[in-house]
Amino acid sequence: MTPLAELETPALLLDRRRLLRNAERMEARARALGVALRPHLKTCKSADVARLLPAAGAYGITVSTTREAEYFAAQGWRDQLYAVAAAPHRLPRLAALARDGVRVRLAADSAEAVRWIGDAAQREGVVFEVMLEVDSGEHRSGLLPRDPVLVALARRLADRRDTRFAGVYTHAGHSYGAGGIAAIRAIAEDERRAVVDARERLEAAGLTVPIVSVGSTPTATHATALAGVTELRAGVYVFMDAFQAAIGSCTLDDVATTVLATVIGHQRAHGRALIDAGGLALSKDRSTRSLGGTRDCGYGLVLDEAGSTLLEGLVVAEVYQEHGVLESRPGASLDFARLPLGSRVRIVPNHSCMTCSAFDAYQVVDGDRCVAVWPRIHEWSRT
Amino acid sequence: MTPLAELETPALLLDRRRLLRNAERMEARARALGVALRPHLKTCKSADVARLLPAAGAYGITVSTTREAEYFAAQGWRDQLYAVAAAPHRLPRLAALARDGVRVRLAADSAEAVRWIGDAAQREGVVFEVMLEVDSGEHRSGLLPRDPVLVALARRLADRRDTRFAGVYTHAGHSYGAGGIAAIRAIAEDERRAVVDARERLEAAGLTVPIVSVGSTPTATHATALAGVTELRAGVYVFMDAFQAAIGSCTLDDVATTVLATVIGHQRAHGRALIDAGGLALSKDRSTRSLGGTRDCGYGLVLDEAGSTLLEGLVVAEVYQEHGVLESRPGASLDFARLPLGSRVRIVPNHSCMTCSAFDAYQVVDGDRCVAVWPRIHEWSRT
Repeated sequence: MTPLAELETPALLLDRRRLLRNAERMEARARALGVALRPHLKTCKSADVARLLPAAGAYGITVSTTREAEYFAAQGWRDQLYAVAAAPHRLPRLAALARDGVRVRLAADSAEAVRWIGDAAQREGVVFEVMLEVDSGEHRSGLLPRDPVLVALARRLADRRDTRFAGVYTHAGHSYGAGGIAAIRAIAEDERRAVVDARERLEAAGLTVPIVSVGSTPTATHATALAGVTELRAGVYVFMDAFQAAIGSCTLDDVATTVLATVIGHQRAHGRALIDAGGLALSKDRSTRSLGGTRDCGYGLVLDEAGSTLLEGLVVAEVYQEHGVLESRPGASLDFARLPLGSRVRIVPNHSCMTCSAFDAYQVVDGDRCVAVWPRIHEWSRT
Repeated sequence: MTPLAELETPALLLDRRRLLRNAERMEARARALGVALRPHLKTCKSADVARLLPAAGAYGITVSTTREAEYFAAQGWRDQLYAVAAAPHRLPRLAALARDGVRVRLAADSAEAVRWIGDAAQREGVVFEVMLEVDSGEHRSGLLPRDPVLVALARRLADRRDTRFAGVYTHAGHSYGAGGIAAIRAIAEDERRAVVDARERLEAAGLTVPIVSVGSTPTATHATALAGVTELRAGVYVFMDAFQAAIGSCTLDDVATTVLATVIGHQRAHGRALIDAGGLALSKDRSTRSLGGTRDCGYGLVLDEAGSTLLEGLVVAEVYQEHGVLESRPGASLDFARLPLGSRVRIVPNHSCMTCSAFDAYQVVDGDRCVAVWPRIHEWSRT
């Protein structure tokens, strides 16, 4: 039970109550929509966080690196979707998990990947379950629902003895750029329709489609119906961030992760105060830039040390490796009396997934106390 | 001696020959300018790299976090400048180093910081050496050379029994935004004049100024004279990056750090190829954005697997957590034959300091072989 005032800075704080509330809200949404929730643990990379997500234990998880797959498997999560197209060199590590009885569904969207996976399964003496990715409008990866290659690849996976066709999934990442909640809802419906379309074509071709999976935090938050879908994936919902608050996935009071920083400098002539959290501690994510106006919060918004009051009109305007520059929004002047040298603030990050990755642990806070330290993994190399 | 082809991706590669050449070039510059070189190890965060920098051993090093100070002290570097204003909570850890006989010069630019440092020195029973920071035009931190506070703080440090005034330093970080080499040269001269001005005022007030320190990689590369200066600091020069190449600190052939990535997807209809190095592996640094035109290289430039050929006209146009999107520059079309699925490329990062921080180790390469693995530190917490 360390008082917050005794923590060194920069420190990554995690508000346990907010985390629980965010988790509960998304679980309730999935129940209301009649789908299973498969949390994406790329955001938290922490078994302690995952243990607080009932869906992760009851149903399964999503991961984005081999390291995450191995770590969460070792901690007991044995039903996984690895939602990034598998590169050939990853397959021996994933085969080792399969031999251990861990069910890691791999992802593919090309004939080449299906071939690598089949060849590796044969070589390693395992059976790989494979999901095919569908492009529902983001155009980052995946096959169009009507692409005949989709059916051909599913059949190839189903026909081989060393692979199984596990279903289809899509990620409507372009929901992050939608202008308002009505637009997010429309993208959620496109997302649903893309995988349901794919499912219908695959079933018409005589294939069984066990999993039909959609997900992104904005679409998961605003989707009104998910008929034909079996599971929902979302990641950043557990922590939220300034970007998710700005686009309406939550309010600022829902953001569970902040960076505690110390005011280490004043440049009064230039209206700038300096904190000891820079580009490494906050990340250089500028996702709110595209929102413009007052929704652009630079490299983060500024709260008081308790995390209860937003210092209105103040943003992290610039970051250097270990320095962050606090400035007032254009037109306002910085009130240095609110930021005495040596005092502390909390920064609400643009993007929790990026910011958390700089730290090895969460300082779990409840009120003004740190009640636990939860380690998190980073990097890609072997455990 | 692992063949590069056997490395998993994403991997951080370090070209040993280029590192040595970059190190040698900056050492030669410092000798020619008649100043000592104090390498800033925030870029490499690695004792293995530091051991290849003769100046680090002969003279001393610069650090930016308490963790770096502790790590490098434990590895034998016992003459350090900690070039970020010291926050109060850091001082007990730094006092422990001082008690061990490590000479860590602290930084300050305010009466408050001088007071914390003095109070902590008294409480901890050590003597702290303190450098005062001068603002030479970046306006991030530091006092103006003619600010009477500068002389007052130096005198306070010199007068106390538990502190010593160690000198003045400045960092012309605004050289990163200079338009061309003539402009960088002018900033280098401003940088020099600022600390020499400060030195003269301090000496006129009867104070001794042991160290007069300047530095940034662009100004260190282009400064023509450093009369009155005693030491030069630079960090990113050891690795360089796409930004430093774009502003003329080096050529692309000098960049020693690249990220090895695998091509995992093709979106032919959208002219995009996907790699397995995204925002976490490359960082979200977009420093070349401000340069515009063809000098803006998105999130990085693309080389072939051997690192010897630039894939002209190709950039990392977008990054997601674990995905990078390769696109051709506007007007050109992407040649997918150069990027077969499963093949590998190397990404030249915008900013090596940020990109390296995502990795726990350097894969040191010489030709097509990985000849060593050098660990690096990250994070801020205690060793």
